[in-house]
Amino acid sequence: MDALDEAHCNGELEIGLKLGFSELGLEDESETAAIEEAVKVLLQSLGEDSTREGLRKTPLRVAKALREGTRGYRQRVKDIVQGALFPEAGLDSGVGHAGGAGGLVVVRDLDLFSYCECCLLPFQVQCHVGYVPSGKQVVGLSKLSRVADVFAKRLQDPQRLANEVCVALQNVIKPAGVAVFLQSWHIPFPEVEESCLGLISHPSKMDMQGWVKVSVCSGSGVFDNKNGDVWGDFLALLKFRGVNVEKNFIHSSSTHFWCPSRSLDAPTCNGHVSTKNVSNGRISSKTGPAYPAMITAVASILHSLGEDLLRKELVGTPNRFVQWLMKFNRSNLEMKLNGFDSGRRDVLKPNLHRGTGNVDEIQSELNMPFWSQCEHHLLPFHGVVHIGYFHAEGAELIGRSILQSIVHFHGCKLQIQERLTKQIAETVSSVFSKDVMVVVEANHICMISRGIEKLRSSTATIAALGQFSTNPDAKATFLQTISNTTASGG
Amino acid sequence: MDALDEAHCNGELEIGLKLGFSELGLEDESETAAIEEAVKVLLQSLGEDSTREGLRKTPLRVAKALREGTRGYRQRVKDIVQGALFPEAGLDSGVGHAGGAGGLVVVRDLDLFSYCECCLLPFQVQCHVGYVPSGKQVVGLSKLSRVADVFAKRLQDPQRLANEVCVALQNVIKPAGVAVFLQSWHIPFPEVEESCLGLISHPSKMDMQGWVKVSVCSGSGVFDNKNGDVWGDFLALLKFRGVNVEKNFIHSSSTHFWCPSRSLDAPTCNGHVSTKNVSNGRISSKTGPAYPAMITAVASILHSLGEDLLRKELVGTPNRFVQWLMKFNRSNLEMKLNGFDSGRRDVLKPNLHRGTGNVDEIQSELNMPFWSQCEHHLLPFHGVVHIGYFHAEGAELIGRSILQSIVHFHGCKLQIQERLTKQIAETVSSVFSKDVMVVVEANHICMISRGIEKLRSSTATIAALGQFSTNPDAKATFLQTISNTTASGG
Repeated sequence: MDALDEAHCNGELEIGLKLGFSELGLEDESETAAIEEAVKVLLQSLGEDSTREGLRKTPLRVAKALREGTRGYRQRVKDIVQGALFPEAGLDSGVGHAGGAGGLVVVRDLDLFSYCECCLLPFQVQCHVGYVPSGKQVVGLSKLSRVADVFAKRLQDPQRLANEVCVALQNVIKPAGVAVFLQSWHIPFPEVEESCLGLISHPSKMDMQGWVKVSVCSGSGVFDNKNGDVWGDFLALLKFRGVNVEKNFIHSSSTHFWCPSRSLDAPTCNGHVSTKNVSNGRISSKTGPAYPAMITAVASILHSLGEDLLRKELVGTPNRFVQWLMKFNRSNLEMKLNGFDSGRRDVLKPNLHRGTGNVDEIQSELNMPFWSQCEHHLLPFHGVVHIGYFHAEGAELIGRSILQSIVHFHGCKLQIQERLTKQIAETVSSVFSKDVMVVVEANHICMISRGIEKLRSSTATIAALGQFSTNPDAKATFLQTISNTTASGG
Repeated sequence: MDALDEAHCNGELEIGLKLGFSELGLEDESETAAIEEAVKVLLQSLGEDSTREGLRKTPLRVAKALREGTRGYRQRVKDIVQGALFPEAGLDSGVGHAGGAGGLVVVRDLDLFSYCECCLLPFQVQCHVGYVPSGKQVVGLSKLSRVADVFAKRLQDPQRLANEVCVALQNVIKPAGVAVFLQSWHIPFPEVEESCLGLISHPSKMDMQGWVKVSVCSGSGVFDNKNGDVWGDFLALLKFRGVNVEKNFIHSSSTHFWCPSRSLDAPTCNGHVSTKNVSNGRISSKTGPAYPAMITAVASILHSLGEDLLRKELVGTPNRFVQWLMKFNRSNLEMKLNGFDSGRRDVLKPNLHRGTGNVDEIQSELNMPFWSQCEHHLLPFHGVVHIGYFHAEGAELIGRSILQSIVHFHGCKLQIQERLTKQIAETVSSVFSKDVMVVVEANHICMISRGIEKLRSSTATIAALGQFSTNPDAKATFLQTISNTTASGG
């Protein structure tokens, strides 16, 4: 709820204008090519062969997704709202407020995606927009969503996004006032190194538990006065949809350093947000000098998106994005995890359910969380892994922590879910039990933040080895076990 | 689960091919213009002035939306999947099933929208797609969604949609098998005439209660055998997400006449679906000869979309769509409702809460359902209306049925939500109580099925007259009353 900077917003609109005119096909092509080159550098620095089949088109995919995800720089609010302002009668003054004069209109629960300017990862937004019509005109409802999307499709911070949407709508509709309330969720930075040792508590479900959440608001016109009754009306209408906002919240919202990557900048500076999900800066200390080529590549991506590298919010972004990518570089992990086949006794549990070789002998470890990075889009996918296995009579059970380590080992690289599933199964099979079944359930950020935007979609994959591939009852029993534990919890 | 007609699907792919090549800008422009002309005829036949500001661009909007909503005719599955088939190792035969050979992959909860071929209204689809990779290759996950969308963006029936998605994926990926499970929801045809008399039970919430729902599935390859274990695996993975399907369902699914408009064809022929939400055919009997210009206009729209008017599923579609539109023609209603200001005593309730002019005197009627038709897009919007009013001391209360009649009276025409809210408030104010407040909460099909596809979005509008516009406490009290009753129920 900082004061709205109208000059700044006009600047934004002009940037949109300029880019709108200069945005010819040729320029677009050269920007895309520049991003592709930068992504190749990143892949190579990660030790990947950027010519292998799965990665060959990744630079182009990433470039297109980033251009698409920042298309708001090349859109004009006026173009969108033009022709969608409709004359609509209001009531005479003194009679009341309704329709095109004073009748509050609120569009709730608009799902948006934006790119975090601190770390270049997408974040998810639930957007609620209200305005009070004046001048006996109303705007087409879908335009509230489309205008919000213009500003979401940029490198953003939640508070600035709210402010920009608010000012743009105020300028273009000229209503009595505009209110914007955003709930935003940011992917946590997984503690790859620590979680391999089983030390941290990860999001244990596929929902956004563990994500960093902030709520922000912005108001103009009659919503300028944070004590005004119209804020109460707006918040009441949100409450009908289960969105509970304390009215005193609108006096105090702040999102400084909401992005978990910000704590990497200086370990002692945690700003205003919880540090539960942020790293301890260990990687930070060694990243600065180590990956100059990668940092230069990310900087060139920002430049190709039309961003000003000197803008203060972006100064550390290339370094932070590189740190994120390096979390999925498995080289460090391989050393830590090379004890897999030595049968560490400390990770074996006593067998409480000794069986006789029947289906009853299946042991399960369910809902082990994982994070990985989609090699087709350089975007995270995350979820849970369920592992079922047969164990020999009298043998000890495999500890959850060692299974979790195997999951992380195979997750911490550029991956696809099908391969991850297979590799986890193969590792368990070769080290512990040839009869193993792995089910991976994941949300792919590329499926929800890019083109198709299938917000609720989730992907499940199965690998079945040994008896699980030959005995349908074994497979069905394990699937039923998962179902009993997780169904309706997702 | 009818046998899949591969020849038919190849035909579909060829249609896509042909249109893909012939789809030049000019042709597109002439098709759009033809639809615009037809929509103008419909507007005029509804007694509307198609040149008034709110409707001036409606023909263009409708034409664009219909072209966009049937873009699948002009898309080729091969173009979409090309370049997204990735080599991926499987396991040796005998060891098990995983990755690119035998490891089941399921993408769940894809939200799609399609147009019902029976009545030309959009219907909502929750789509689940699975396949078993073979030949050591997998397909990019988003392509499963994109291919499903190619067939959703046509005039469809749920079973045919499932079959076409299944066959197309089988042909283009050449996996061991493909399974498709769809849950579809169709808007009910509101019983406008009856509901004005308060006789029917309407969907009382904003969710899809009251909608016609069907589930269908389709399988190929290893999913051809409905008794195969792989169907069990697929359904188990859906169950993790709360989608419960009985395995014997896949032997018997059928969607004959799922569209509620089908019962309009012949009142005694209700097919296999529930008739709870379908009309009794009264309008039907007089529609046939009465609206030939409208029926011709809708037929020309189908033709402009590239459809074959002689295709048997489409023969009655123009007539059914006209009947739907005529439900929002208020002319019949005006006669029925002209008794508003005569103070019908049968609709007044005894006053159980006599008050003293304070806020306590507010009377509320909440969650009154309504249906209306968005004049910008000729698509329905629906939801609930909450009415609060002050009543004079000793006066009798306004009956819920008369308020519901007022709501329907103003809903049954081409509308916008802001105006509907104002008109309901004005009517109550002029007839019963000058101190009235109206809150309308609605889902707009145009917001969820068209371009922006904001599935969860909902719009709330307020009109406040008399004391409600001058006394913030009165307004806040009424909003709190709604909140207490509806919050978290949506």
